[in-house]
Amino acid sequence: DFLHALDEVKPAFGADSADIEEAIRYGIIEFSKSIPGILNDGMLYVESVRQAERLRHTAVLLHGPPGSGKTALAAHIAMKSDYPFIKLITARSLVGFRDELARRDYLHKIFTDAYKSPLSMLIIEEIIEWNDVGPRFSNTILQALLVLTKAPPPQGRRLLVMATTSMRPVMQQLGLTRAFDRQIRVPAVQDARELEAVLRESGAFEDLGDVTEIINRVGDYTNSQRVGVGIKTILSTAETARLNAQPAQWFAEQMADLIAVNNPYGDGDGVGGM
Amino acid sequence: DFLHALDEVKPAFGADSADIEEAIRYGIIEFSKSIPGILNDGMLYVESVRQAERLRHTAVLLHGPPGSGKTALAAHIAMKSDYPFIKLITARSLVGFRDELARRDYLHKIFTDAYKSPLSMLIIEEIIEWNDVGPRFSNTILQALLVLTKAPPPQGRRLLVMATTSMRPVMQQLGLTRAFDRQIRVPAVQDARELEAVLRESGAFEDLGDVTEIINRVGDYTNSQRVGVGIKTILSTAETARLNAQPAQWFAEQMADLIAVNNPYGDGDGVGGM
Amino acid sequence: DFLHALDEVKPAFGADSADIEEAIRYGIIEFSKSIPGILNDGMLYVESVRQAERLRHTAVLLHGPPGSGKTALAAHIAMKSDYPFIKLITARSLVGFRDELARRDYLHKIFTDAYKSPLSMLIIEEIIEWNDVGPRFSNTILQALLVLTKAPPPQGRRLLVMATTSMRPVMQQLGLTRAFDRQIRVPAVQDARELEAVLRESGAFEDLGDVTEIINRVGDYTNSQRVGVGIKTILSTAETARLNAQPAQWFAEQMADLIAVNNPYGDGDGVGGM
Amino acid sequence: DFLHALDEVKPAFGADSADIEEAIRYGIIEFSKSIPGILNDGMLYVESVRQAERLRHTAVLLHGPPGSGKTALAAHIAMKSDYPFIKLITARSLVGFRDELARRDYLHKIFTDAYKSPLSMLIIEEIIEWNDVGPRFSNTILQALLVLTKAPPPQGRRLLVMATTSMRPVMQQLGLTRAFDRQIRVPAVQDARELEAVLRESGAFEDLGDVTEIINRVGDYTNSQRVGVGIKTILSTAETARLNAQPAQWFAEQMADLIAVNNPYGDGDGVGGM
Amino acid sequence: DFLHALDEVKPAFGADSADIEEAIRYGIIEFSKSIPGILNDGMLYVESVRQAERLRHTAVLLHGPPGSGKTALAAHIAMKSDYPFIKLITARSLVGFRDELARRDYLHKIFTDAYKSPLSMLIIEEIIEWNDVGPRFSNTILQALLVLTKAPPPQGRRLLVMATTSMRPVMQQLGLTRAFDRQIRVPAVQDARELEAVLRESGAFEDLGDVTEIINRVGDYTNSQRVGVGIKTILSTAETARLNAQPAQWFAEQMADLIAVNNPYGDGDGVGGM
Amino acid sequence: DFLHALDEVKPAFGADSADIEEAIRYGIIEFSKSIPGILNDGMLYVESVRQAERLRHTAVLLHGPPGSGKTALAAHIAMKSDYPFIKLITARSLVGFRDELARRDYLHKIFTDAYKSPLSMLIIEEIIEWNDVGPRFSNTILQALLVLTKAPPPQGRRLLVMATTSMRPVMQQLGLTRAFDRQIRVPAVQDARELEAVLRESGAFEDLGDVTEIINRVGDYTNSQRVGVGIKTILSTAETARLNAQPAQWFAEQMADLIAVNNPYGDGDGVGGM
Ligand SMILES: Nc1ncnc2c1ncn2[C@@H]1O[C@H](COP(=O)(O)OP(=O)(O)OP(=O)(O)O)[C@@H](O)[C@H]1O
Ligand SMILES: Nc1ncnc2c1ncn2[C@@H]1O[C@H](COP(=O)(O)OP(=O)(O)OP(=O)(O)O)[C@@H](O)[C@H]1O
Ligand SMILES: Nc1ncnc2c1ncn2[C@@H]1O[C@H](COP(=O)(O)OP(=O)(O)OP(=O)(O)O)[C@@H](O)[C@H]1O
Ligand SMILES: Nc1ncnc2c1ncn2[C@@H]1O[C@H](COP(=O)(O)OP(=O)(O)OP(=O)(O)O)[C@@H](O)[C@H]1O
Ligand SMILES: Nc1ncnc2c1ncn2[C@@H]1O[C@H](COP(=O)(O)OP(=O)(O)OP(=O)(O)O)[C@@H](O)[C@H]1O
Ligand SMILES: Nc1ncnc2c1ncn2[C@@H]1O[C@H](COP(=O)(O)OP(=O)(O)OP(=O)(O)O)[C@@H](O)[C@H]1O
Ligand SMILES: [Mg+2]
Ligand SMILES: [Mg+2]
Ligand SMILES: [Mg+2]
Ligand SMILES: [Mg+2]
Ligand SMILES: [Mg+2]
Ligand SMILES: [Mg+2]
Repeated sequence: DFLHALDEVKPAFGADSADIEEAIRYGIIEFSKSIPGILNDGMLYVESVRQAERLRHTAVLLHGPPGSGKTALAAHIAMKSDYPFIKLITARSLVGFRDELARRDYLHKIFTDAYKSPLSMLIIEEIIEWNDVGPRFSNTILQALLVLTKAPPPQGRRLLVMATTSMRPVMQQLGLTRAFDRQIRVPAVQDARELEAVLRESGAFEDLGDVTEIINRVGDYTNSQRVGVGIKTILSTAETARLNAQPAQWFAEQMADLIAVNNPYGDGDGVGGM
Repeated sequence: DFLHALDEVKPAFGADSADIEEAIRYGIIEFSKSIPGILNDGMLYVESVRQAERLRHTAVLLHGPPGSGKTALAAHIAMKSDYPFIKLITARSLVGFRDELARRDYLHKIFTDAYKSPLSMLIIEEIIEWNDVGPRFSNTILQALLVLTKAPPPQGRRLLVMATTSMRPVMQQLGLTRAFDRQIRVPAVQDARELEAVLRESGAFEDLGDVTEIINRVGDYTNSQRVGVGIKTILSTAETARLNAQPAQWFAEQMADLIAVNNPYGDGDGVGGM
Repeated sequence: DFLHALDEVKPAFGADSADIEEAIRYGIIEFSKSIPGILNDGMLYVESVRQAERLRHTAVLLHGPPGSGKTALAAHIAMKSDYPFIKLITARSLVGFRDELARRDYLHKIFTDAYKSPLSMLIIEEIIEWNDVGPRFSNTILQALLVLTKAPPPQGRRLLVMATTSMRPVMQQLGLTRAFDRQIRVPAVQDARELEAVLRESGAFEDLGDVTEIINRVGDYTNSQRVGVGIKTILSTAETARLNAQPAQWFAEQMADLIAVNNPYGDGDGVGGM
Repeated sequence: DFLHALDEVKPAFGADSADIEEAIRYGIIEFSKSIPGILNDGMLYVESVRQAERLRHTAVLLHGPPGSGKTALAAHIAMKSDYPFIKLITARSLVGFRDELARRDYLHKIFTDAYKSPLSMLIIEEIIEWNDVGPRFSNTILQALLVLTKAPPPQGRRLLVMATTSMRPVMQQLGLTRAFDRQIRVPAVQDARELEAVLRESGAFEDLGDVTEIINRVGDYTNSQRVGVGIKTILSTAETARLNAQPAQWFAEQMADLIAVNNPYGDGDGVGGM
Repeated sequence: DFLHALDEVKPAFGADSADIEEAIRYGIIEFSKSIPGILNDGMLYVESVRQAERLRHTAVLLHGPPGSGKTALAAHIAMKSDYPFIKLITARSLVGFRDELARRDYLHKIFTDAYKSPLSMLIIEEIIEWNDVGPRFSNTILQALLVLTKAPPPQGRRLLVMATTSMRPVMQQLGLTRAFDRQIRVPAVQDARELEAVLRESGAFEDLGDVTEIINRVGDYTNSQRVGVGIKTILSTAETARLNAQPAQWFAEQMADLIAVNNPYGDGDGVGGM
Repeated sequence: DFLHALDEVKPAFGADSADIEEAIRYGIIEFSKSIPGILNDGMLYVESVRQAERLRHTAVLLHGPPGSGKTALAAHIAMKSDYPFIKLITARSLVGFRDELARRDYLHKIFTDAYKSPLSMLIIEEIIEWNDVGPRFSNTILQALLVLTKAPPPQGRRLLVMATTSMRPVMQQLGLTRAFDRQIRVPAVQDARELEAVLRESGAFEDLGDVTEIINRVGDYTNSQRVGVGIKTILSTAETARLNAQPAQWFAEQMADLIAVNNPYGDGDGVGGM
């Protein structure tokens, strides 16, 4: 099982176990019925890669606004998968290398390591986000990532790739979604009702009167029921609020600002967090 | 014949035979009359390269939406061609090389190998897709591919190049279709009737009532007869569905999503898959 | 405390203490109620990084027009934070290196130094401003900065990153604000009333009649109450004025010019200074 | 004469004689009165370079849609010119070199070789087409080609440069047509009447009833007399058709497709072939 | 004083004294009241850098149309400043270096030299003009120049940077004006009255009747009082005119051409000279 | 005098004398009164550089449509100037160098050579045309050329730079005209009357009836008096025509084509030749 896999491929695995746990630091709150749906679909792909010969290679793209929980959901699915090999690839792991070629070789090695196990999962964090900024992409790395994602593993090996992004429109425009067999949308917390569920279930505010006050204030400030902010931002702002003299009021003001910043641009993929 | 060829040019051929077979993993379903038309035209080019002196060098572009079956059809034609030399060139085969020059030399070698046989077929998978992302193309490789595609083989040699792409509009815009003598369009599964044919003939759902339910549900969800999804996506989603508690319902929902994603942008070449 | 920290990590720290003091050379004037608000929020993040396990890593973006006081406010918060490790990263510290790789290694080293202390603050001055000019960004450095900003510190370490920019719209457009957990807006001096507060509280003009004259003249020249000029520009122009034969008149003319230059383009982030 | 020239400058000449012959593999059909006009103008330039001291250096650009016969016409003029030195420069001859500098040196060498003969012709195939793809040109090669094209040969030497392109609008836009003293337009087969002439004179269909049937069918399918397809495409498609069970019908369908593809974009230089 | 400074930092200073004098080869003519205003402001910055601790580092941008006298005015201020260290940085001084890095190191050295003197002035000629042409800037040099301009000198050192440009709109657009604390606009000669003042005070035409004739002719030719041409162009054209048989008439025709060329585009920064 | 100068600076001069003569191969025809005006202005600059201390360094830009005679006029002025040092810099002289740095060093050397003579003229052919194609300029070379053009020669030396271009609008847009003190426009042959003058004075057609026929035919074909074709194109086409059976008719047809090609785009700088 999980720790066992860790032993088998130590050098390639490293501190991932802690990373994966830290990704779910606030747990998984079912603030809307889309959450169990996402987890269910994720497990379905876990199973079809494991069982169906013709689906032994599947690439899934988790997309949604910043802070909507993409990484936490991928990590949760990974932990429940019981796959012998799991690896999280982040931009941070790439920044230390001398140049593009060294990075590409490292990515190659990760896939080659995964091919050694009969059943592997690779989570590629923010697949296009950090490769480059602005309109010029670092093609060496991105090209390698996408080609590796689309390339079938050797005969007899099974591989599930899960990639996350908050820039799906850019990917679509550049024709990069072609590399994925499936897509899963991870939504922001959408409205006052979902926000209330998050605040209640997270226990962020001990006094439930605070929750009611917040919902009322936010409604007053924004004159609407729309929220459109990622759960990560909500939960960490709530935690900061607790250090404030007037947590509910301060939190409500921050939420009003965040809602204002996120919603002018609509509630597509490109927005939703900080 | 086929395996014999494998012996003759082993190093250049490698694991292609398995690759070519895997490309047709769900067989060829004649869900519309365009399918026999494509196969017929493909065999015509196979024959004219073999027989007509002045057509001894022909380059064909198979284009169509993602997952529409371009690779499977090219592989099928190759297997039926009885050519002594067949080779599939994929982006994956290029990713392992150190730099652009090494890749270009490798492509050179493939063509040179092909020229050794009196009659050869080269399938270039996704000819522009993975060379680069975004608006800047890796000109070293693309230039080499296109020049090699257009260059006539030596006297007495015959060569059929089949290339696939889901980005024909980009190729057209960049003037790259000039390298091809013929083009074949591979369409997505277009409407409810064709979808029904696919589901029935593939045997994806054992219970034919499921097929009827799916067609009805999809019609209800999308309020239209239009489908516009590639056969690859349909068949693999159907296979995943079988691991679900309610396969027909889940499959129908997935189809509705796919139809929604693919159709806003029209049903041109750029869309049609995931 | 502060000087103690200086001893501990001398090579990484250098002359920063003087730099931080020089950044506040005109003190902090509370010309509007937004100023205590900003300082309060800044200290809140100082405390939440120190105390809350799940907020041990926070990145804050201070944005606002040129000369609005971003650096002074960040420096003020740093001095009041009582953190054992504080470091100011400026473009000047990068210009001396041979090439992009040397700069990236230096940035790496700064973060690594910070990770040695249990509690650290890094101030990144003008995070995107000097990395490159025009529409092409130096991706090596910017990518490194953003990835390092978003990467969590090792277990048991706590890190507050404060970055300043007067180009937030560009950052937003390039998707770079995703690297930050929080944003604080630092406004320019907005109107005649705030300008008067600045001039009175700074003691820039000994004769308070001068202040009244200035406010009147500026109103006459510009035919409006709108100012929209950064406090840095106002305070240094006032100091220059004192060397002039007719300080109030000259200062008022300069202000009128500055107001004219800054306001045609609106009062967004991109304008507000010289 | 021609073969004699071959002997004189063997290393520079190589297999060109065969190349030049293959370029006219379907002969020259006078399907319209523009054809003798083009040949006549070509021979005029051949003669003026030979005879007129002040025209001893002339550069001619043959432009027209893909497959319209530019290469065949240039080859025909070259064969009739009786020049002691003739050389065809194609993209294929450049693809084998290691890098841009090696290619540039090779081009230099070709011109230097030409300067050794008192009277030389250089045919530069697809002068801008393969130097790069998309909007970024490989300036080393293109610059060298254009500068060499415009540079006068040494005293006492005579040089006719003939270049072909199907991208004249791009050349015009980039100011590249400035390198040429003369331009000759090579048109596609324009209408049903010209198409009929091509089919009759080529003898592509033995049964002349087939020709009539084709003209009728094409008219029916396209509802117009307009053709706008290059003669190369027409002749090679006709040859393929002969391997089909129903040659006339299949050919007519292919023509209808080609006409549809070529004509939406008008009948300018950019279109006209496959 | 000035020459003394020359001795102290000889290697860094070189032939600057002659350069600075040549920059004012036609003297300074007060053709409009803006001229004494500019000189007055320039001396104010000279004094505030010298005297005010908090203004010990000031960067001023002189901007205006080509040939409007930016360099002459900066040189004049420098000569009157009595600073111990003065240095003129021109594109010409950069062109001799092997590569960008060597140039950057040279700039570094100039600033380091300046830091050795307690009080220094650096004049950066045409700060963005020659770094690159077209829309792609040479970021190594420009970045270095701007960062060095904005970086405060070491404790106890005082530095006035004066930069000139005729491309302020481009600088504004690229966000480069942020590097400057103050801006001074240097206007072209605006109308017939100012032109007359220039011609009279320069003594360019000995016969004052010529001046009257010129003003009349220019008015006739252009049908307007607007001039909008830089004083440098006016004075050097006048000097050329004196070699002509009919100086007044020729000069007037040249002026009419210059006015026509400069004014269609308005009288912004981008135009005004040749 | 001229040949003497050749002796003094042989290595830098080379075959220029022949080059300069070949540039005027059809002589100078005064087909319009603008021609003596251009020559007169050219000689005026020749004299003012020679005589006026403050004009010892002058840069002149000759601009006009392709083939309008820019090079011939500059060569003519150079031959009449009686300067001891004259040098023609062409793109051809740059193509032989290994890389950009070698080319820049060569340009440096040419200017340094010129500085050795007390009085020098440099003609820079097509100053921006061949440095690069398309919108990306080779900044190393262009930057060097422009900086060298604008840099004053050493004390006591005198330098006249004459540059030619048919891309003045591009230069204007890129701000490159700033490098020049004077501009001279060289027009195309504008109308039927000027064309007639060219044909008569050149003696291109022995039979003057041919000239009349041509003018009539051209008028008939184009339905206008407008010509707008460069004199170089006219004279060389006329010479070719003489080898044709029906010279007048063929020449008239060619002219009609040239007029049609040149005039749709207006008669600005960008057009006028082939
Ligand atoms: N239903 C949920 N789905 C996902 N995350 C949840 C949910 N409920 C609570 N969380 C918590 O919210 C946080 C989500 O943060 P996460 O880093 O996964 O977001 P993200 O979308 O990956 O952000 P980014 O766009 O920055 O990559 C986690 O700490 C997780 O524990
Ligand atoms: N009529 C058909 N044509 C093509 N493929 C078919 C057909 N019927 C069934 N299939 C199956 O559908 C799948 C088509 O996938 P294939 O990889 O060829 O699509 P593609 O268009 O090349 O996709 P991509 O755009 O990703 O390259 C194959 O597994 C093949 O066996
Ligand atoms: N309320 C205030 N907030 C910030 N700075 C203030 C305030 N009152 C006075 N100051 C003074 O104003 C100056 C602000 O300059 P500072 O360099 O911080 O601006 P900035 O926004 O960082 O400028 P830039 O855009 O150039 O980076 C400092 O000298 C500071 O002492
Ligand atoms: N009148 C004609 N003009 C030119 N080619 C003709 C003519 N009649 C028949 N042909 C034949 O048509 C073919 C023209 O092909 P060719 O390669 O010259 O076209 P092209 O315009 O150079 O194509 P591309 O745009 O691909 O370079 C030749 O095989 C030639 O023998
Ligand atoms: N009032 C004035 N201001 C500036 N220069 C003047 C004035 N009166 C006369 N001059 C003369 O005009 C010339 C101005 O040229 P200068 O090189 O300074 O212009 P510039 O704006 O720097 O040009 P460029 O845009 O080419 O850099 C100098 O020779 C100077 O002696
Ligand atoms: N009045 C004239 N002005 C210039 N050239 C003339 C004139 N009369 C006759 N000519 C002849 O016309 C030709 C002009 O060609 P030239 O190469 O100078 O043109 P160009 O404008 O430099 O062309 P390009 O744009 O290709 O550089 C020369 O051969 C010259 O002898
Ligand atoms: Mg994430
Ligand atoms: Mg495929
Ligand atoms: Mg700051
Ligand atoms: Mg051709
Ligand atoms: Mg200047
Ligand atoms: Mg010329």
